[in-house]
Amino acid sequence: MVSEKTISRLTNYQTLLRQQQLLGTTHLFSHQLADLARVTPAQVRRDLMVIGYTGNPRTGYHVGDLQESLMQFFAFSSGIPTALVGVGSLGRALLSYFMTGRSNIRIAAAFDHDPAKSGRTISGCRVHPMDRLATVLAGVEVTCGLITVPGSEAQKVADALVAAGVHGLVNFAPVRLKVPPTVFVETLDVTSSIEKAAFFARSFARKGQEELSHE
Amino acid sequence: MVSEKTISRLTNYQTLLRQQQLLGTTHLFSHQLADLARVTPAQVRRDLMVIGYTGNPRTGYHVGDLQESLMQFFAFSSGIPTALVGVGSLGRALLSYFMTGRSNIRIAAAFDHDPAKSGRTISGCRVHPMDRLATVLAGVEVTCGLITVPGSEAQKVADALVAAGVHGLVNFAPVRLKVPPTVFVETLDVTSSIEKAAFFARSFARKGQEELSHE
Repeated sequence: MVSEKTISRLTNYQTLLRQQQLLGTTHLFSHQLADLARVTPAQVRRDLMVIGYTGNPRTGYHVGDLQESLMQFFAFSSGIPTALVGVGSLGRALLSYFMTGRSNIRIAAAFDHDPAKSGRTISGCRVHPMDRLATVLAGVEVTCGLITVPGSEAQKVADALVAAGVHGLVNFAPVRLKVPPTVFVETLDVTSSIEKAAFFARSFARKGQEELSHE
Repeated sequence: MVSEKTISRLTNYQTLLRQQQLLGTTHLFSHQLADLARVTPAQVRRDLMVIGYTGNPRTGYHVGDLQESLMQFFAFSSGIPTALVGVGSLGRALLSYFMTGRSNIRIAAAFDHDPAKSGRTISGCRVHPMDRLATVLAGVEVTCGLITVPGSEAQKVADALVAAGVHGLVNFAPVRLKVPPTVFVETLDVTSSIEKAAFFARSFARKGQEELSHE
């Protein structure tokens, strides 16, 4: 099985290639992609061997072809069907982002326990009541569940999604979920990320100050 | 200097301790915290040595005291002042989350290039026009910048924040930023995270199917 680190790098290459395509780049050498991704050129070549793509030694990688190979490897050509649970402000923001079709991610169903929200259609997506989760997901293919509920409810929601057969979770709640080993959880904890960035920001700023005072 | 991995683990402990405190836990042994954080007990003890905290061998760590030590280490007791750039749906969601004071993160200023948004107060936070960024940040202490603009504008915004003396960035745009070595960037790329979770979800689901067919 491909390691989580390799997959992270491959999804990173995808993002970088999308970015380069928007800038009009048609070809990239491994050392250029490595530079953008902050890894070594040898790493880039090893990673792309996993998806069976090799560039032309003279012209490098063809940006469009490489993107196509990555899409095929990830088998995301038909889009990633996701379910979103928790239509608060973050949930609504994600709905409005993904329902515009700016990526290959499709929200197939949304859920909220608040009766004032369920039954409504938000950004073109029907919001179902929480207690219909199992029933709705029995009829729709969903690969990935997005958890945008408060921390106190996240584990319950994760359990319900796992019980409904969802094997991938992206958790935005500031808690660590317990799931069976056949379920993959990616945590996007905004508060922790800001705390981390702030810690390094402060030490960098202090270092800058010290250097100035030594001048 | 403390490594990025150590800092990530320490912020993770903070999240777990908040969670445990809400559940009414007053004491935790290193092996319990290790179990929650999915690291070894030895790792937990090494990490907490960095912040100078040691538990009582009989009763373990005191949850409240340990949180206090972490807060002091991170020097976040007075809150982390942040600036948010890009008041679209995600920016608004973050504003409404952080302006309610549910964490130690304070949005000190928000910016948007859209004249329809700047000048307004959203979730209690005044939104300034983009071209006032340098002026406004000259008068407010800001440790961390949150970038919630589209990918095409993210680098420009990062440059402006760095020029204004901000050393920590949390980037939500699906691009990789180039910054000087004295600036720390944390990337929260929702699309990449979903792609990664979907990849593993599919292989786990396939494996489950295979196991079933072998029964």
